[in-house]
Amino acid sequence: MVLEHAVLTVRSEEAAAFEEALAKARAVISAAVGFLSLTVRRGIESPDHYLLLIEWESLEDHTVGFRQSEAFVEWRGLIGPFFESPPIVDHYLPVAGLS
Amino acid sequence: MVLEHAVLTVRSEEAAAFEEALAKARAVISAAVGFLSLTVRRGIESPDHYLLLIEWESLEDHTVGFRQSEAFVEWRGLIGPFFESPPIVDHYLPVAGLS
Repeated sequence: MVLEHAVLTVRSEEAAAFEEALAKARAVISAAVGFLSLTVRRGIESPDHYLLLIEWESLEDHTVGFRQSEAFVEWRGLIGPFFESPPIVDHYLPVAGLS
Repeated sequence: MVLEHAVLTVRSEEAAAFEEALAKARAVISAAVGFLSLTVRRGIESPDHYLLLIEWESLEDHTVGFRQSEAFVEWRGLIGPFFESPPIVDHYLPVAGLS
């Protein structure tokens, strides 16, 4: 299991429209091969920051399978227009004995 | 429910000792008032980064209740010596319709 960790910065006046678009985009990414779950949170100290935590079966399910798919174009087309800056994305692994 | 999001940078040669200390520290934080859960992940692109996701009943349970307690001194005493730089901590809220 791999955790995709993405911080998105969204123009604050467009937060409601972004959240609506993300609800639609969730249906797109949820159908991807290897997708396990998506958690969305909004910043308290920085309300223009959204944290997306996406669990994948493997790193390649995200970086190759999903990113090179038509579904990625649809996903990014829905939410990308709201980004104020490029998203910051990295990946994490469980830690034995601490999961 | 509030999510505490912390990125810790740990000297890579001390990763194993840090993980052992964190297993002990988990028992300390787990007993705090308002603590709900702790998830630990290690970076793939940056293996010296550990992501801690801690769910609290309220923001104040973390920022006031825990941080001003003796348990925080114990928690930080266990894991703090492994930090290469100050931890980056912020907080997030669920988003209605996206949780």
